[in-house]
Amino acid sequence: MIIEVIKLKSFIDKLMDKVIKTDSRICVGLDPHLDLIPEYILDKAREKYSDHKKAVAMAVLDFNKKIIDEVVEHTAIVKPQIAFYEKIGLEGLRTLEKTVEYAKEKELLVLLDAKRNDIGSTAGAYAEAHLENENIDAITINPYFGMDGVKPFLQYKNKGAFALVRTSNKSAGDIQDIVSKDGKKIYEHMGQLVKEWGDNYQGDNGYSNLGAVIGATYPQELKRLRSFMPGVFFLIPGYGAQGGGAEDVASAFDKKGLGAIINSARGIIFAYRNNDKYCEKEFAKAAGEAAKNMKTEVNKAIANFNR
Amino acid sequence: MIIEVIKLKSFIDKLMDKVIKTDSRICVGLDPHLDLIPEYILDKAREKYSDHKKAVAMAVLDFNKKIIDEVVEHTAIVKPQIAFYEKIGLEGLRTLEKTVEYAKEKELLVLLDAKRNDIGSTAGAYAEAHLENENIDAITINPYFGMDGVKPFLQYKNKGAFALVRTSNKSAGDIQDIVSKDGKKIYEHMGQLVKEWGDNYQGDNGYSNLGAVIGATYPQELKRLRSFMPGVFFLIPGYGAQGGGAEDVASAFDKKGLGAIINSARGIIFAYRNNDKYCEKEFAKAAGEAAKNMKTEVNKAIANFNR
Repeated sequence: MIIEVIKLKSFIDKLMDKVIKTDSRICVGLDPHLDLIPEYILDKAREKYSDHKKAVAMAVLDFNKKIIDEVVEHTAIVKPQIAFYEKIGLEGLRTLEKTVEYAKEKELLVLLDAKRNDIGSTAGAYAEAHLENENIDAITINPYFGMDGVKPFLQYKNKGAFALVRTSNKSAGDIQDIVSKDGKKIYEHMGQLVKEWGDNYQGDNGYSNLGAVIGATYPQELKRLRSFMPGVFFLIPGYGAQGGGAEDVASAFDKKGLGAIINSARGIIFAYRNNDKYCEKEFAKAAGEAAKNMKTEVNKAIANFNR
Repeated sequence: MIIEVIKLKSFIDKLMDKVIKTDSRICVGLDPHLDLIPEYILDKAREKYSDHKKAVAMAVLDFNKKIIDEVVEHTAIVKPQIAFYEKIGLEGLRTLEKTVEYAKEKELLVLLDAKRNDIGSTAGAYAEAHLENENIDAITINPYFGMDGVKPFLQYKNKGAFALVRTSNKSAGDIQDIVSKDGKKIYEHMGQLVKEWGDNYQGDNGYSNLGAVIGATYPQELKRLRSFMPGVFFLIPGYGAQGGGAEDVASAFDKKGLGAIINSARGIIFAYRNNDKYCEKEFAKAAGEAAKNMKTEVNKAIANFNR
């Protein structure tokens, strides 16, 4: 009898492999703002389903699948934002399930953007709810509870978590910029803690299964965090619609040009709205082109970055 | 034609009225840990439903309804923790919907414990997802994003939000106890911000629709926060199973004995496990007795508190 030992691959090794294979450091955010989805898709669903929420949910699923088909060759990973699915109720969450299943069939990695957080036992319930879903590879979390609210999300070697360190929004600094008595800002303390918490969860590539969320809209903070957070993979939202550009994020990468992914949602999935070349029905093609362009822009900015 | 002007009541006024009417300052946490639910309820559901998740979800609904029936006269409000429902998948979330519907039929207020948080546009989607549910009166949120991640939860006059200030868990201090250069700790800054953000959302009683979450397990911090957060209603978890007692929380109340609710989940809903008087099948009665006792203990501690 031959006993086959299967070594479970770390999430972070899977992510790195996929980034290298696709040569893409982008992440496509699947945030289906209902007022931005092509009207014809909603109309088609409404003809088929009399229940309003069911129709909307089916329209979103249709939209997502078409987007995935076009972006799949330009991205390593997709990131559905669960709020937009919760908003459609149970039918919306069913669409989320089907979306992540479809993404997985296409061999994409899936990061669920959920910012979950609570005391340990409840964080454990969230981890079970989402990371035990075979089609979800990682989740975003909010680390305000400290270490024991983070740990339950790190219990699966093949799954990852990204903890908020510096958020991309305007009022991020309300708490995150408070200066502590040792002169460091709170976002720096959070970065330091996330680094320490993740040290025991490294993959073969030296990065940890615990990554950090850092907004592209704060390039100085990003640079500062990278300087003392080697080995922490960065998820960088705020690119495109929120204002961050390729040159703003180049400092997030290591000297091999790895160690971060840059997320864009509206800028990719609703690209048809700002592109005269494509009509509404070609929204997915427009998204594919936007993903390809963003991938190229980011790669170029990394190549040109003076470290 | 007579035009009737209906003045929408603030969430916080509804909560205060209900607290006064029931003379109860407790909140019953509906956190259905599956390994603590009476086995006979799970067995009964399994006989009826072959699908595993469906059976578990129906058992939880049965459990919740029986608990609600017995605690309804001793509490103003119930607080389901959404993680335990997400864990059971879509069927679990359907049970959550049915649970809040049932609680509302019984004229209880319902606080959804979800700790949602994100940038403004996404926070708006969460607010719509949960606060536009007619059976949900308020939600817990995590304010690490600062003001623009909090505001969307305050857009409905008849709904409320409770923002994390001092959490009840052991590692709460990892971030929350960092001392800023002006000598204040981060949880104090957060308390100050929550107070300021809520100032424009006051009800007729002088309290705000934006409340604060402060753990019973940190009585010194609780006292400190109350001293500079008048007008902010406190939701206090960590009572009972987590270690907080009635004397620890008395300082949270104003001189009228109002302004806070104390949550207990395991200590009430699973009281049958630590009470020889009741067999498994009398779990709901045990919960009712535990709620009644806790209500009395808290009221007594407030009466005896030297302010």
